[in-house]
Amino acid sequence: MTKQEIIHQIKLKQSFLCVGLDTDLSKIPTHLLKEKDPVFEFNKQIIDATHDLCVSYKPNLAFYEVYGSKGWESLQKTIEYIPDDIFTIADAKRGDIGNTSSMYAKAFFENLNFDSVTVAPYMGADSVEPFLAFKNKWVILLALTSNKGADDFQFFESVDEKLFEKVLKQSKNWGNDENLMYVVGATRPEMFTEIRKLVPDSFLLVPGVGAQGGELSEVCKYGMNKDCGLLVNSSRGIIYAGNDENFAKKSREEAIKIQKEMAILLNKFKII
Amino acid sequence: MTKQEIIHQIKLKQSFLCVGLDTDLSKIPTHLLKEKDPVFEFNKQIIDATHDLCVSYKPNLAFYEVYGSKGWESLQKTIEYIPDDIFTIADAKRGDIGNTSSMYAKAFFENLNFDSVTVAPYMGADSVEPFLAFKNKWVILLALTSNKGADDFQFFESVDEKLFEKVLKQSKNWGNDENLMYVVGATRPEMFTEIRKLVPDSFLLVPGVGAQGGELSEVCKYGMNKDCGLLVNSSRGIIYAGNDENFAKKSREEAIKIQKEMAILLNKFKII
Repeated sequence: MTKQEIIHQIKLKQSFLCVGLDTDLSKIPTHLLKEKDPVFEFNKQIIDATHDLCVSYKPNLAFYEVYGSKGWESLQKTIEYIPDDIFTIADAKRGDIGNTSSMYAKAFFENLNFDSVTVAPYMGADSVEPFLAFKNKWVILLALTSNKGADDFQFFESVDEKLFEKVLKQSKNWGNDENLMYVVGATRPEMFTEIRKLVPDSFLLVPGVGAQGGELSEVCKYGMNKDCGLLVNSSRGIIYAGNDENFAKKSREEAIKIQKEMAILLNKFKII
Repeated sequence: MTKQEIIHQIKLKQSFLCVGLDTDLSKIPTHLLKEKDPVFEFNKQIIDATHDLCVSYKPNLAFYEVYGSKGWESLQKTIEYIPDDIFTIADAKRGDIGNTSSMYAKAFFENLNFDSVTVAPYMGADSVEPFLAFKNKWVILLALTSNKGADDFQFFESVDEKLFEKVLKQSKNWGNDENLMYVVGATRPEMFTEIRKLVPDSFLLVPGVGAQGGELSEVCKYGMNKDCGLLVNSSRGIIYAGNDENFAKKSREEAIKIQKEMAILLNKFKII
């Protein structure tokens, strides 16, 4: 999917919501456990209930790998079920030496047909570039993550820059705002101003709103650009909004709340 | 597997060889392609031919994920086939926020019963600690990798330390040399002296000997400690030593060459 198509979908749906499909058998409604593939059945109903309110779905691979080959099948069915006008993110945080990253890229872009994959920067250029070699596909590079552990290394500082700033700068030699996005957590909204100086036109995938405590309005205030430039993720807050036979309806209600808030913000910042 | 058991196996086999099972359908002998599960059949024959010469096997996950759920089944069969006295490494380079890292840990330690998993440090403490919570299991943390891209961030420098040095130091607050190893590439043997000052007693997983150009004798000169403290990986050099019906015999010959060299080095450094 191209950048223009993503922007078009955001304006059309008045939403920049990404729904995280972190589907955990111990958290989904128990009546689904009798289904042949409970993970897919859950995802299917969540997608049916929310696809007109979001522009992206983001399955986190850990939640599928934990069920082995069966989990991989649930993932495959899920990605095939997601409508074509939705931007799909394999939240896999992969990264390896060149020939190995190529295999990961093939797994996610060719075999599963994801639009994008999250990639960890630690191993540098040759761990990221094989993903960028795929046309109309995206790398979403970890820059400043939403968790507490982000403090351990991402703020590691040389004379004039922090590690996450170096990641942002260096990666601009590898790709551009048509094939490279960044993960920037909502839990440090004050950092968005600095980050926007380095990557003014890039899309940012923003986790950490909701359960982790980030504020949507703050993220927009400091992080939105002229094209919106944000995909804001919510996982648990939406998919586990309910826990009985009405769970999909509940998840829709939660997604509507967020979409309405997003429409107001898109208006306020003159995107629509 | 405990550290003492690993050391015992190294002395018993006079080897600190790790064989990387990076099994690629486009590289294995063509007569295997008619098998129901060519990846497992290849691995099985490699394991039969080399298990008395090595102390560890390391499947790289990318090479299994690329075949989707079928690849995951090949991986499961492979890990079940590896003898119990061998230290198994899931070379997955995972790392995510806490609750998600827990799912990855469950996938590799509980469901697949690997002894260890490689983890990327970028997301910090809470991305690593869930793996360390498993008894008798190991994290192998990326420190200084063997690829060219290692230069991009791992040598990023503050006043008094480089990023990979900070990773080594900081991680000692999370685990110890009984549950935490480090990836240190063979392509920069001169760095081992510095690294050994920081983690004198830890095991190091060393890729990059062979195809990537690292020298075994150099690695030992600067990196070996009183317990050996090294697991040196070879993937392509061993598993693709032959490309016809005699491939397993060829891989054994290659493994014998390395094992003999290792026995000499273990003697030289008075480990055995």
